[in-house]
Amino acid sequence: MSESSIAIPTVYGLRSSGNCYKVQLLLDLLDRPYHWVDTDSSAGATRTPEFLALNPNGKVPLLVLDDERRLAESNAILCYLAEGSSYLPADDWDRARTLQWLFFEQYSHEPYIAVARFVRRWLPEGHERQAEIPRLLERGGNALDVMEDHLGSECYFSGGAFGVADIALYAYTHCAADGGFDLSRWPRVGAWLERVRAQPRFSPMAA
Amino acid sequence: MSESSIAIPTVYGLRSSGNCYKVQLLLDLLDRPYHWVDTDSSAGATRTPEFLALNPNGKVPLLVLDDERRLAESNAILCYLAEGSSYLPADDWDRARTLQWLFFEQYSHEPYIAVARFVRRWLPEGHERQAEIPRLLERGGNALDVMEDHLGSECYFSGGAFGVADIALYAYTHCAADGGFDLSRWPRVGAWLERVRAQPRFSPMAA
Repeated sequence: MSESSIAIPTVYGLRSSGNCYKVQLLLDLLDRPYHWVDTDSSAGATRTPEFLALNPNGKVPLLVLDDERRLAESNAILCYLAEGSSYLPADDWDRARTLQWLFFEQYSHEPYIAVARFVRRWLPEGHERQAEIPRLLERGGNALDVMEDHLGSECYFSGGAFGVADIALYAYTHCAADGGFDLSRWPRVGAWLERVRAQPRFSPMAA
Repeated sequence: MSESSIAIPTVYGLRSSGNCYKVQLLLDLLDRPYHWVDTDSSAGATRTPEFLALNPNGKVPLLVLDDERRLAESNAILCYLAEGSSYLPADDWDRARTLQWLFFEQYSHEPYIAVARFVRRWLPEGHERQAEIPRLLERGGNALDVMEDHLGSECYFSGGAFGVADIALYAYTHCAADGGFDLSRWPRVGAWLERVRAQPRFSPMAA
């Protein structure tokens, strides 16, 4: 086995999950080869004994290196893979601001925007969780307001440049309409989505 | 003004909030002076126009440097303040594992363990959100299971050593009983809490 082939990482993930798509998009932007193991969390594939032995938290994406070291949490995976590239700033303050947006994404954005998409697209009409939609739209709208405010003075979220925080925020923002968000209310966010899509080697999320 | 006094950061926060306490604890462990501005989010102090001008996401803790640069998100603040100290590993892989636990804390731990504490301690008996308690105990219990599993092979969460991920996880784990968790179910977690409390210059959370 050549040195380059053993350095190819493996990603366990579901292509239509935004959290998993983040890892795909970064690896494609880096032009880095990887193995992808389809792991359908919605069909129970992350709750098997085999998968729980890899990630006791039972979630995808999961990164596995050629020497079997494993890393969970999409945004931690982004930072690890982007280290040394232009997608993760080297400057301490720019890196801190990038982390701020990565934590914002997981705490104030994804739990509303991704969950609204899940409830509306994957659960049947009349399911009791449809009752959560108004609150999800309100909280998710707040997150988009905060992004719109930031984009009034900066073009990107990763310490002034395009990088991992943009990749993380793009993952569920670009498909927010699936959850019932009318993105025309946030025009700077719409323009930023276009700037992300214009990056060299950009790859879209699977339908 | 001396150089050391202008380098004293200001923290806006609520002392009894675990997310704010994280920043207090790290600064005390670092033996670093700071100004603390009491900001009672439960009384609306984070929704005033003045505060929203500092942090458009309307949350504490917020770190403000002497030159007015501002940083939000507790775990991003921890990483920024710990840079160059023993509390944030320099090695890429140890740092990645530390970030994994920091994102785990904000996504799989705090939204259940901190919220159970909030509902049980701050909301009146009979409040409709009391209905969330069974789900919060289940999901929070899962998070404690994952921590217990990890502590079967390692003593800490920050790349093999004590550091920012331990501080972040300590914040709401040590007071999980407030939310109805019986910590005797997770004995390794209990022993780890003691190891955190034994750190030099450890400071407790305000009652």
